[in-house]
Amino acid sequence: MNTNSNDVEEIRALVEATSAAIREKDVERALEPYTPDTLFYDLAPPLRTEGPDPEATKAWFDTWNGPIEHEVTELDIAVEGNLALAHSINRIGGTKTTGEKVSTWVRMTLGLRKEKGTWRVMHEHVSVPFHMDGSYRAAVDLEP
Amino acid sequence: MNTNSNDVEEIRALVEATSAAIREKDVERALEPYTPDTLFYDLAPPLRTEGPDPEATKAWFDTWNGPIEHEVTELDIAVEGNLALAHSINRIGGTKTTGEKVSTWVRMTLGLRKEKGTWRVMHEHVSVPFHMDGSYRAAVDLEP
Repeated sequence: MNTNSNDVEEIRALVEATSAAIREKDVERALEPYTPDTLFYDLAPPLRTEGPDPEATKAWFDTWNGPIEHEVTELDIAVEGNLALAHSINRIGGTKTTGEKVSTWVRMTLGLRKEKGTWRVMHEHVSVPFHMDGSYRAAVDLEP
Repeated sequence: MNTNSNDVEEIRALVEATSAAIREKDVERALEPYTPDTLFYDLAPPLRTEGPDPEATKAWFDTWNGPIEHEVTELDIAVEGNLALAHSINRIGGTKTTGEKVSTWVRMTLGLRKEKGTWRVMHEHVSVPFHMDGSYRAAVDLEP
């Protein structure tokens, strides 16, 4: 595996900058790594969407009271040439505008492509498992 | 992007062979593409597991009455050198031993690595979204 350490550091910085932008509810910076054809498999339905959606991102930010907690752990990055794969276990937390306190661990997988010298996310998959006890409850209560 | 068409065809064949093995409940063939350190973000808890688990796979196969329906759609594969990314929208269906009829669309993302000339899955992420209406229900009812 020809993993270029500069590329790994650039991708790590991209992931951390996006996490910081989410914490600060900065829509523009949070969506910067994506392209118009990024394929999202997201936490919320539908099954997949194409391209970032600033209005939906802002609406989601607005469901939180104050800053959003967002941390990235277990980040692992593999690079070859202009293609990269990254995955991590992230925590999203805070207080919703309803007053509900939330702290949820999610899984994130990214496919990235280097275009004109800049890494962009071409595919993002974020999820929680679901309980297979017949309840079909989203497993938002797991700890890593 | 140096996408080698032979590599794409090999990965497509791997994905289709695994799907066929699931349909036929063949544990050994279903787990063939994985390595002892494959990192799974799976449909069921926990958040992540490492390495294939033949006993758990067999136990899951045994929850189905007769053959499992499994189809792979929207498969897209990107390759560069010995690294590849694949994603697809899959349907899993059939009749559970409880008599419950199931047909669920899931999202699958694979990270692959070519080792000694053979493609292996180093990372697999399979999920459904969940309904963000406060119910936290796993969205097993979506159509692509």
